[in-house]
Parts: sequence; C-alpha cells; structure tokens
Amino acid sequence: MNQPIILSSQIRDVVLGKNVKLVQPVNLYECKIGDNCFVGPFVEIQSNVVVGDRTRVQSHSFICDGVNIGNDCFVGHGVMFVNDLFSNGGPAGDRNAWKTTTIGNNVSIGSNVTMLPVTVCDGAVIGAGAVVTKDIKIKGVYAGNPAKLIRRL
Amino acid sequence: MNQPIILSSQIRDVVLGKNVKLVQPVNLYECKIGDNCFVGPFVEIQSNVVVGDRTRVQSHSFICDGVNIGNDCFVGHGVMFVNDLFSNGGPAGDRNAWKTTTIGNNVSIGSNVTMLPVTVCDGAVIGAGAVVTKDIKIKGVYAGNPAKLIRRL
Amino acid sequence: MNQPIILSSQIRDVVLGKNVKLVQPVNLYECKIGDNCFVGPFVEIQSNVVVGDRTRVQSHSFICDGVNIGNDCFVGHGVMFVNDLFSNGGPAGDRNAWKTTTIGNNVSIGSNVTMLPVTVCDGAVIGAGAVVTKDIKIKGVYAGNPAKLIRRL
Repeated sequence: MNQPIILSSQIRDVVLGKNVKLVQPVNLYECKIGDNCFVGPFVEIQSNVVVGDRTRVQSHSFICDGVNIGNDCFVGHGVMFVNDLFSNGGPAGDRNAWKTTTIGNNVSIGSNVTMLPVTVCDGAVIGAGAVVTKDIKIKGVYAGNPAKLIRRL
Repeated sequence: MNQPIILSSQIRDVVLGKNVKLVQPVNLYECKIGDNCFVGPFVEIQSNVVVGDRTRVQSHSFICDGVNIGNDCFVGHGVMFVNDLFSNGGPAGDRNAWKTTTIGNNVSIGSNVTMLPVTVCDGAVIGAGAVVTKDIKIKGVYAGNPAKLIRRL
Repeated sequence: MNQPIILSSQIRDVVLGKNVKLVQPVNLYECKIGDNCFVGPFVEIQSNVVVGDRTRVQSHSFICDGVNIGNDCFVGHGVMFVNDLFSNGGPAGDRNAWKTTTIGNNVSIGSNVTMLPVTVCDGAVIGAGAVVTKDIKIKGVYAGNPAKLIRRL
C-alpha cells in the first residue's frame, strides 16, 4: 500500500491575544486571534484570518483565508466561510483570485450559516442556517437561502 | 507569545446507559445518553442534553444545552441544534433566556439540518439540509429553508 | 457508571493512491482514494467510497457509503453526502436500500452543501449552502435549497 503524507491538526504560527481559550482538537495556523477569545473544538482557522477581541468561535466552524472578524462577535456552530466563488467554473488556481470577507463588531452569526465573501456591518444578526450571498449594510436580522432582511434592529 | 488556555474534548460527567458506542474524538459533558446509543466522531453534546435509548447521533453533529431527544431517533451528520434566538440582537448573556428543544420518539433528522428550538412530534422525518424554525405537530416529511410539510406519513 | 464502547477515528483498510495528503484527525475506512488527493481534518469517509485522482476533500466533510467521486473534483468544507432517503419514514434498516451518488470529473462542490443521492455531470459547479436533490445533467452553476440551475457553463 502507498504510504500517505499524514499531517496533524495543530496550533502553528498563531498570534494569540491574552486569555484565549481553545478546545482541542483545532487546526489554527498563521492567523491572529484577539484577547479573551474562545475557539471551540473541531474548528479550523486558516492563514491571514484576523479575529477581534472577545469574539467566540463555536465548534465545527471553518474560517478561511482572507476573513477579518471584528470584536465581540459570535460565530455559531458549523459556520462555513467561503473565499472562492468558482468564478471560472472551478477552484481558482491562483489565491490572488480569492475574495475577502469583513465582519464588523458585535455581529452574531447563527449555526450552520454559510458566508460567501461579503462585508457585514456592525451589530447584524444572521439566523441559523442562512446562506449570506450579499453585503449586509443595514443593521438587522437576516435569514434564509439566500439570506434576506427579516427585521431591522 | 501569549499562552492560550488549552482544554481538550472529553467525555466528562456523562450518565451513560448500557452498551453505548462512541467514536473519538467527541466532546460530551454533563449530559445523559440512553442505552444502546451510538455517537459518531466529531460530535459535541452539551450540558443538560438527554438522549433516549437506541438513538444514533452521527458524525459532525452538535447538540446544545436544553435539547431532549426521545428513543429510537436518528440524528444525521452535521446536524446543528440551536438554543439562542438572538432575540435581543445578539447572544443572550443569561442562559435562562435559552430556549429548549423536545424531539419525540422515532424522529429522523437528515444531515446538515439546522434545528431551531422547537418541539417535534413522534415519527417525524426531516429532510437533509432543512432549517426547522417551527414546531412540528403533524407526523410527516419536512424539507426546505424554512422547513415545510412535504407529505404526511 | 456504565462503561461505553470507545472506538477511535482511524485510517483503516483504505486503498490509497500515490502522494495522498491527510490532516488528522480523520475517520476513513474501507474506501479508495486516488493519487495526489488531499483530505482535510475532521473528515469522515465511509466504506465503498471511491475518490478519483487529484480530488480534494476539505475539512468537516462527510462522504457516505456508496458515493463515487471522479477526478479533479473539489469537495468544499462541511459538505454532507446522503445515501438514505428515509423512504419508509425512517432510516432503512437494510443497507441494500441505500442509494448511490456518482460525481463526474472536474466537479466543484461548495462549502456546507448537502448532496442527496444523485448523479452529477462533469464540470458542474454547486454553490455553497446548496441542497442538491436531483440529478445534475447540464454543466452549469447550481445554487439554493433545493438547488437550481443559475447559469450554464
């Protein structure tokens, strides 16, 4: 049998703020996590991600390269961020083609949410199971696939 | 570099029935799992969850505080339960504000389903990928976002 | 307290091609993975799955018994395949009742996608968060719940 190359989930080259709490196993590399953050189990956070202070990333979530999350945010369980729109009919071979995501402060993202590369304003609330395909500019509650404004806050 | 507080997924203070089968890694704490249950890998089950006898919880699922699941249920892969509706525009600081979920007996929940805090009657079937936002009172098959009755059983 | 039967995620009875890269923890058993594939962390791949050459399976995905994936495919993060339609109102007790899935070559499946048992043609693109309930016969981009053709490629 061919021998695979076996890597292991790890915490590598991560800039950690003070008092960060992590629950293993996690796979975090080349990212920055602010003060007093929590990262639950079965989470992957990739290179070039910045997470602000007091933000909580719950179990089973995946935060891809190019995502910037503000302070005091809540990222629910099983949230998947996306940076590649498959614009040319498949994965961009060139990472320069990846899109970025910017999440403001005090943003709450429900469980099982899918986040396409967008900008989300401060204080927005995204309901569980939503698929966010467009920028969110109005502070409010969003839900559905694709996510739509349900009510203003 | 600041040193994080590193916790580890574990099986802690769980009341287990007879003949429960678990696949590590899992993170289970302060919950109750009935006889002859199966819990797949990459699963988290939180405090105050009760799972009935012969119920199977498949890989990648997350069962939050306050969920009560009956006997002979099937919880698919990547199912996310929710207890916080962000009613005040963000996470409830007070856990007394969390809502509970009650799943009857013989309920089947498809993979990637999102379960808001609801009550589900015996024998209901929830199709893969559905987002359940309301109580399910009629035995039938439900699908979509939000989940709707597709056919009675 | 009753003692559970504790199994562990593993790589067991897998036929691996050359130069396969895996990130632990993964749970792979009785499946076949082609040359130059990548499998990210927190992935489960079950018995009787065949994955073609140069296909990448990203973190948090679950590939169930009976799925056949072609060459040069991309399976995003948190993708859940399904083989049991609960046709008789619950899980099929008999695995002969499970349905199969066939994914062609050069297929890209976005993150958080739910794949019911279907056939997908070469070159199709499935947008993040979609729920694929029917065969995909036309090369194009599909999105939504249920997934629909958005544009041809």
